[in-house]
Amino acid sequence: MDVQKEKDAVTAVIERWVAAIRSSDLDGVVADHTGDIVMFDVPPPQRGLRGMDDYRACWPPFFRYIESGTTFEIVELDVTCGEDVAFGWMLLRCGPAEELERKPDLRLRITVGLRREAGRWQISHEHHSFPLDDQ
Amino acid sequence: MDVQKEKDAVTAVIERWVAAIRSSDLDGVVADHTGDIVMFDVPPPQRGLRGMDDYRACWPPFFRYIESGTTFEIVELDVTCGEDVAFGWMLLRCGPAEELERKPDLRLRITVGLRREAGRWQISHEHHSFPLDDQ
Repeated sequence: MDVQKEKDAVTAVIERWVAAIRSSDLDGVVADHTGDIVMFDVPPPQRGLRGMDDYRACWPPFFRYIESGTTFEIVELDVTCGEDVAFGWMLLRCGPAEELERKPDLRLRITVGLRREAGRWQISHEHHSFPLDDQ
Repeated sequence: MDVQKEKDAVTAVIERWVAAIRSSDLDGVVADHTGDIVMFDVPPPQRGLRGMDDYRACWPPFFRYIESGTTFEIVELDVTCGEDVAFGWMLLRCGPAEELERKPDLRLRITVGLRREAGRWQISHEHHSFPLDDQ
């Protein structure tokens, strides 16, 4: 296995996904995801979103939030890649302009898990959160 | 590679880690972690905790929280395992008895990423969060 090549492929999947989110491109957002995706989103449900129908349904409200002028950009991305399994974590600037002005260090944290099936890297798990300030 | 054997090994690492947390056993908690661990904890810092010194330092306050009667138990655990890279996600009941009585469905979500080095699975990334109810 060419580790660097696979790592680049995983990085490309993640960057395409972020670009699709910024473009409100639902088909692009779900293009590299497994049917059994489990997503821990920022809001509930407590048990996470399970499967492609749940996953697709969560995006349109977020697209409206992005379209209203919300920033969504990667600040840092780190990928750990094996032959058929990989994971990555990233920090993003995410929020309305006035919130990011008030809290410039605010970060959305996203962790993704991927499987390579039939030579294609696909995201099967996502975990999104903001740090909880009041704990 | 015997996939099931490696998956069992990763599951055992995660379960030992949870048991060590419940026992306030700091050496046990950090025993299967890489020196370059990046942890997105429930509270800040926004950029996460970086490296073993940061990681060790975050646990004593949580041990005191557990010792005060806080539940910390796995409800669901799922592991995806390759040859040298794996990730897992879990849902836990975590909170004081009165809070869990009020909100029985409340879940702590934890995602972990692991690397196998010299034949030993080690956690190099953790992401902990509760769903944000007010978003």
